[in-house]
Amino acid sequence: VNQLNYLRLMISVSILGYGNVAWHLVNAFEAATDINLIQVYSRSEINNKDLKVAHVKELSQLVPAQIYIIAIPDDAISNFSKQLDFKDCLIVHTSGSLPLSALKIQSRKGVFYPLQSFSKNKPINFSEIPFAIEADNSSDLALLKTLANSLSPLVYKIDSIQRKQLHLAAVFVNNFVNYMYTIGEELCQSNDIDFNILKPLIKETALKIEKLSPNEAQTGPAVRFDRETIENHLQILPLEYKEIYTLLTNSIQKDVKKL
Amino acid sequence: VNQLNYLRLMISVSILGYGNVAWHLVNAFEAATDINLIQVYSRSEINNKDLKVAHVKELSQLVPAQIYIIAIPDDAISNFSKQLDFKDCLIVHTSGSLPLSALKIQSRKGVFYPLQSFSKNKPINFSEIPFAIEADNSSDLALLKTLANSLSPLVYKIDSIQRKQLHLAAVFVNNFVNYMYTIGEELCQSNDIDFNILKPLIKETALKIEKLSPNEAQTGPAVRFDRETIENHLQILPLEYKEIYTLLTNSIQKDVKKL
Repeated sequence: VNQLNYLRLMISVSILGYGNVAWHLVNAFEAATDINLIQVYSRSEINNKDLKVAHVKELSQLVPAQIYIIAIPDDAISNFSKQLDFKDCLIVHTSGSLPLSALKIQSRKGVFYPLQSFSKNKPINFSEIPFAIEADNSSDLALLKTLANSLSPLVYKIDSIQRKQLHLAAVFVNNFVNYMYTIGEELCQSNDIDFNILKPLIKETALKIEKLSPNEAQTGPAVRFDRETIENHLQILPLEYKEIYTLLTNSIQKDVKKL
Repeated sequence: VNQLNYLRLMISVSILGYGNVAWHLVNAFEAATDINLIQVYSRSEINNKDLKVAHVKELSQLVPAQIYIIAIPDDAISNFSKQLDFKDCLIVHTSGSLPLSALKIQSRKGVFYPLQSFSKNKPINFSEIPFAIEADNSSDLALLKTLANSLSPLVYKIDSIQRKQLHLAAVFVNNFVNYMYTIGEELCQSNDIDFNILKPLIKETALKIEKLSPNEAQTGPAVRFDRETIENHLQILPLEYKEIYTLLTNSIQKDVKKL
């Protein structure tokens, strides 16, 4: 295989946007050996001297690529996509909540959704991040699978309706879970308790479900119907969290009764 | 130091009860080099041929020890303790929710609370488990600190009022968090999505707060006041979880406004 042929086998990609997700994808694709990252489009300056890929500020400067990845805020994706008049290529978005049809384009459509909570500048190990992919036809799906596999072995075929539910489930296991941590921290702080004491329990709670279904792993006063402990808890809980405690306790108990 | 002196320096301990917590403590103390585990009291047979320590079925068979650890269900502790008429010793319970005064005894009292969710037969690495300790006087506190340190470097002095709040906080970060996982799993199952796709996010959410305060780590549609996504979520969420979604979203947003 001479070098020209090799380059042809590599997937050529350009990234449109340079927010959180784009930043991580650019870093990851630059490091991937089988991806030919061609350009990054961003209207504003890019303050990153480590950036190797070419930066363009105008859509008219974009050269042909097999895949264009739109990585901009959800509410801007549809309108932005209307400006892309490339024909023989696959254009994907990276949003968990938007359907494939959010792309208003003439070319082939796809979704390339990395399911993780990204923070800028915090290094991400992509090999542990699942990708939910979707496309209109099986060859584009295979192309997206190859693209995703260049970063991670965890690739799932998820359609638009499933992806919405997945995004919603992620709100529960990420956003709402983090809020439970916040309440735990606040209870510690207002009682002069070092929050660090809870961190091993937090970690173990997350690790436990790698082997056990969360349904089987449920413990605590609610699932035990331990009314005395529940009443004691409600007595010492600040007013603002009483409704949450009661609602979650009742909901856990309803689930037990269903079984 | 001859062996007799050495034995005198070791802390002598007996464990009363043989449930989940007791089972793990027995294993751990048998492995600890500086603890002299003397007896385990349990009215029923112990089906464990690896058990090295002597098992007694009658309280009258208990010989003197420096520390007796009561590890039985919370609601049985007070009444059980009344039967213990030892004088020159420290008797502790292992409950997160009961005060020191739950021990109805003549001898010195303490609490030795390992803050973790135990499952029988699942090996526990005690060196990662925090102990919350309490005693009536500083020498007993020092004794309990030495006892805890024989298993873990993570030892916290926590009084009865704090421990109740800590136990309550643990319900949020363990029981309620696990319930969020359960909802996430149910949303996946009813939409034919492999729940494994959420596990890396679950893990990252827990690991994130080792470096970031959960308050700073909060992301998602609630904290962004992203009304469109919230409404979309509520439209596709099963009725039974709508109230939880709305209440937690509102509560997250109230917290943001307070800042």
